[in-house]
Amino acid sequence: MFSRLRFPIIIVNFKAYQEALGKKALELSRIAEEVSSETGTCIAVAPQAVDLRLISHEVKIPVLAQHADPFTPDRYTGAITLEAVKDAGATGTLLNHSERRILLADLDKTIKRARGLGLATVVCTDTPEVSLAVATLSPDTIAYEPPELIATGRAVSKEKPEAITRALNLIARVNPHLPVLCGAGISDAEDVKIALRLGTKGVLLASGVVKSKEPYKVLRAMAEACI
Amino acid sequence: MFSRLRFPIIIVNFKAYQEALGKKALELSRIAEEVSSETGTCIAVAPQAVDLRLISHEVKIPVLAQHADPFTPDRYTGAITLEAVKDAGATGTLLNHSERRILLADLDKTIKRARGLGLATVVCTDTPEVSLAVATLSPDTIAYEPPELIATGRAVSKEKPEAITRALNLIARVNPHLPVLCGAGISDAEDVKIALRLGTKGVLLASGVVKSKEPYKVLRAMAEACI
Amino acid sequence: MFSRLRFPIIIVNFKAYQEALGKKALELSRIAEEVSSETGTCIAVAPQAVDLRLISHEVKIPVLAQHADPFTPDRYTGAITLEAVKDAGATGTLLNHSERRILLADLDKTIKRARGLGLATVVCTDTPEVSLAVATLSPDTIAYEPPELIATGRAVSKEKPEAITRALNLIARVNPHLPVLCGAGISDAEDVKIALRLGTKGVLLASGVVKSKEPYKVLRAMAEACI
Amino acid sequence: MFSRLRFPIIIVNFKAYQEALGKKALELSRIAEEVSSETGTCIAVAPQAVDLRLISHEVKIPVLAQHADPFTPDRYTGAITLEAVKDAGATGTLLNHSERRILLADLDKTIKRARGLGLATVVCTDTPEVSLAVATLSPDTIAYEPPELIATGRAVSKEKPEAITRALNLIARVNPHLPVLCGAGISDAEDVKIALRLGTKGVLLASGVVKSKEPYKVLRAMAEACI
Repeated sequence: MFSRLRFPIIIVNFKAYQEALGKKALELSRIAEEVSSETGTCIAVAPQAVDLRLISHEVKIPVLAQHADPFTPDRYTGAITLEAVKDAGATGTLLNHSERRILLADLDKTIKRARGLGLATVVCTDTPEVSLAVATLSPDTIAYEPPELIATGRAVSKEKPEAITRALNLIARVNPHLPVLCGAGISDAEDVKIALRLGTKGVLLASGVVKSKEPYKVLRAMAEACI
Repeated sequence: MFSRLRFPIIIVNFKAYQEALGKKALELSRIAEEVSSETGTCIAVAPQAVDLRLISHEVKIPVLAQHADPFTPDRYTGAITLEAVKDAGATGTLLNHSERRILLADLDKTIKRARGLGLATVVCTDTPEVSLAVATLSPDTIAYEPPELIATGRAVSKEKPEAITRALNLIARVNPHLPVLCGAGISDAEDVKIALRLGTKGVLLASGVVKSKEPYKVLRAMAEACI
Repeated sequence: MFSRLRFPIIIVNFKAYQEALGKKALELSRIAEEVSSETGTCIAVAPQAVDLRLISHEVKIPVLAQHADPFTPDRYTGAITLEAVKDAGATGTLLNHSERRILLADLDKTIKRARGLGLATVVCTDTPEVSLAVATLSPDTIAYEPPELIATGRAVSKEKPEAITRALNLIARVNPHLPVLCGAGISDAEDVKIALRLGTKGVLLASGVVKSKEPYKVLRAMAEACI
Repeated sequence: MFSRLRFPIIIVNFKAYQEALGKKALELSRIAEEVSSETGTCIAVAPQAVDLRLISHEVKIPVLAQHADPFTPDRYTGAITLEAVKDAGATGTLLNHSERRILLADLDKTIKRARGLGLATVVCTDTPEVSLAVATLSPDTIAYEPPELIATGRAVSKEKPEAITRALNLIARVNPHLPVLCGAGISDAEDVKIALRLGTKGVLLASGVVKSKEPYKVLRAMAEACI
């Protein structure tokens, strides 16, 4: 069920984790939906491609693809087109994640095509300068993630607050209304609180929730931190 | 519903075609299932990643992914793991299609991992020599497709019979029981007949069925040519 | 012999053409040097990697690599580092050519590293929007080239003047002093004249000179058009 | 000065190391030439692309590129063609190094093209199975290197003798006269001796010589181990 991105937002990236595949992906998505409904905070999930359709149809929170190719529907064996992402019921897609970087030329093309299709784009960036460059392409959201902190449990909001501030300032110059998230190492409500205080509109995280033994508890605390 | 590959076989690759996405992918898969059931010829479909789970659960013919990444389930945003392919209910995966070539090192890794997971691999090749090289890695099937004929409507079995024979001979030296298909430009029953007469165990095709106005009729004739 | 980029400029990309390899690359570079010296117009050449050192030592015009990898000197077999480009005596490097696109993240890294090493960067772009995005990364020059016109002989300055104007306007907003070139299909002095009249600081071209039977004559006319 | 590969052989890969760039690459190549001349053992060097021509013209030992692209000379900005490698005076090229893997389809194409141009190919492989697959493509030499040991100083010949034996046996089945090298962690004469005793025709190494304070001494001992 198609649902728009609202801010502040918590986006949970399921990556290619076994703990977030198939039935488990659905369970995790239902937990996210429950927490979202209880707290009013927007929580989006980014499941694996094979789970996109299943989850989009079972939950009422925004569902994002983890990646989409720049191609139009045609002779592109193995590609995941934006049209397929849309047909699967997703709200949009992550793009340029540090584990799936894309060419600058493809990024422009894909953001434009997504806009035409009514799909939201959340573009990951690794430096304040790249964040500025991406901001000029007008995606729907930027998620600034210093790659060296991803999956470390050391939160970007605590370790690199000045880099977040710098990214926000640069982006504000060219695109002042663009919502910016931060990510990398986000693992508890405190990390989220600091991120929001710095001026971001939310967080992108993965292992902090997916690998947690108590995803409900972790997400609930984070969602409350957003209120 | 998991179903094994049987030979002779017709594999229909849905590529990223709009005509074979979502509902239309399901319709096409049902047609393939119907023809397969009526004729006894094995017909497999290779839908887009977002459709794998849906189709695997709705039809009783083999369903293949169009591509799988070499990664184990872990921090690989945007990847399609073999575990995801299996969880989605697929029988196996195409690998190294001309529109999605993979590294030799990854091919070895992926074939081995697929074997361990009980997934079938259908590896595409572009020359008789590459076919021989791939045969030594012992995939479940090889689909030899000269790229210059793909999507031309000029069938490999008519245009390059001697190349097919050469590929078959080379493969037989190292792996005599490996079933070999051919592909590229296959568009009617006659093309299929010639392919089988040359010694292949079937065909891999796409536009010939996906872009046809009468997919049932085309597939039915092809399936009968296999009896 | 190291020589700085001056504007207006004509950059001749030798691509992987046989007509611009080894001895022929040197001859062509000497012609460029001669024309530059006669007319006062800056002409730079971008030879193949194996010719960089030879040509940098034989001519006194700027020599550019066609591509450089983002890596620092280390365990990167097959890489062309910026340090190697510099050691070979080049002035800088082209980056992100349509035939060798790079990841956005690598572009940022490479521009920053080049700056630190005193190497000039000429970044190719394919749309006005990508030009704007690249401008925020502050390369030394941008070369806007609509890929569909490359190697056609139909000059971008005649076929897409409004796109050039749009690129110039977008870039001026964030980086008003950044020199912008245009490329694709540039084949005679008239094309160059129009390009300069539109506000660019020169052109990037390849086959128009490399494949010409009279490269001196073509270049000479183009260089005069810049005076 | 063009020089053929002879066996046993020691191939020194300069990678993108700063210690083996430009003047230092030339010094190192002269040391290799000296040791080769003193001991009679064939020693080849694989310098960075920008140094290929310089070194090929200054030493009389075989010089190899570290990588070559599959493309014919044409519109391929940034590519290193086999024609450029040949024009630069090199004997041949490494292919498919673990730090620069190539597509299976490109490997076939590049080996065939190199043969036509009279260039030698040394193809790196990471498993015994991939070694077998590559052997069927008939390159001039295979260098089996388990990637997990590269740059560790823990020699493949000591750590994985059974894997080397397995690779040799598999290759012998399809191509009994193909010389096979091993690499990864090779750092002294003892490592080389064991490698030869296992049946290889030499070694491929990098840091063991390039990062050594006494490259002459290390190479000399290794070359003597080959007599």
